[in-house]
Amino acid sequence: MRADHREWRRIAKLDPARALSDERLDEICAWNVDALVVGGTGGYGMGEVLSLLGRLHGRSLPLALEVSDPRAVCPGFDLYLIPMVLNSTEVDWVVGHHQATIKRYADIMDWERLVVEGYCILNPEAAAARLSRARTDLDLDDVLAFARLAEHLLNLPVFYLEYSGRYGSPQVVAAVREVLRNTRLWYGGGIQTPEQAERMASLAGAIVVGNALYEGYAPLAKR
Amino acid sequence: MRADHREWRRIAKLDPARALSDERLDEICAWNVDALVVGGTGGYGMGEVLSLLGRLHGRSLPLALEVSDPRAVCPGFDLYLIPMVLNSTEVDWVVGHHQATIKRYADIMDWERLVVEGYCILNPEAAAARLSRARTDLDLDDVLAFARLAEHLLNLPVFYLEYSGRYGSPQVVAAVREVLRNTRLWYGGGIQTPEQAERMASLAGAIVVGNALYEGYAPLAKR
Repeated sequence: MRADHREWRRIAKLDPARALSDERLDEICAWNVDALVVGGTGGYGMGEVLSLLGRLHGRSLPLALEVSDPRAVCPGFDLYLIPMVLNSTEVDWVVGHHQATIKRYADIMDWERLVVEGYCILNPEAAAARLSRARTDLDLDDVLAFARLAEHLLNLPVFYLEYSGRYGSPQVVAAVREVLRNTRLWYGGGIQTPEQAERMASLAGAIVVGNALYEGYAPLAKR
Repeated sequence: MRADHREWRRIAKLDPARALSDERLDEICAWNVDALVVGGTGGYGMGEVLSLLGRLHGRSLPLALEVSDPRAVCPGFDLYLIPMVLNSTEVDWVVGHHQATIKRYADIMDWERLVVEGYCILNPEAAAARLSRARTDLDLDDVLAFARLAEHLLNLPVFYLEYSGRYGSPQVVAAVREVLRNTRLWYGGGIQTPEQAERMASLAGAIVVGNALYEGYAPLAKR
């Protein structure tokens, strides 16, 4: 069975660089989640990814690896999420790293398993924003323009509004959803309570819960 | 009738900044061309584009405007070609100008008429290479990686190998064609003789004749 990211509504994002007890992992997997994504902003290698993958296998959930560092890619995932930081000020984060990775690994890449995420990072304090030198001083029309760029010019499957570490604006999420037709809207950032999760889940195509997993919150209901 | 760029094999690219006699224009339009594209690297405004458009209408050929400068966009073309310089070192030429243009004109844009061209500019002397600060020191594997990026990550309709002002390598064109399935390969640069045109036309999805139009050459046969 090939995982279909278009069916995902609630996603748990696990960071290979952070420790997670078996009990907590069991708890998360018992939540109403549609997929487990492995990804972070660095501080891990292939060993950490493989170790986490080993703990996630056999849980009857689609597994995806978000490829931030090509050196930490390993086989065994259902899908590979490829971030493009659309509002980065550096070409490497838009297409440069991607071209370099394709150059190196083209022969062994399984194109059918790739899902490109057009990121728009809106929290300047986020590690991903600093790393990718994202232009975060965006007004709503800027964000909508990036969303339309993702859908109409790039045909991206996913537009990812990333507030990482901060709960975002439901108004912005609703407005972006309004201009997207084929591109799925993913929302991530600051989801700690069930109310926050449900609010954003009602607006976006999918929500991503990340930091909360490591901070003891339970934003998603049990299955 | 909506123009279908996938059917184009031979394209004449007319520069609004350069003078062309009526006689020469008639001659070009009598060649075996499938479409007329209006585009250049600057030095013109909406007035020049409209003037050229007026001279091209009624010639029973699809008309496309290549949008290098959003201030010089006008209605009346069948298609609008949107260049993304994939090997630019500046994010503006990849997605930045595009986002800014969408921000300004989203309400009046006809998305169905847009065709995104993923440019890979290979002649460092070309005005477009200098303007977009393209990284032209690419080996074949680099070029293939950009082509695969265009097809698999960005789903672009066109990958445009641009040698503007210099006749390119048939070996490179053939190798790129080999890795593309859905994305059409366009070749442009230095085509002056029928032999050069036919060689590249046999390898690429479409060839683009530009400078030759202004230099008295006749690389394409009469219809």
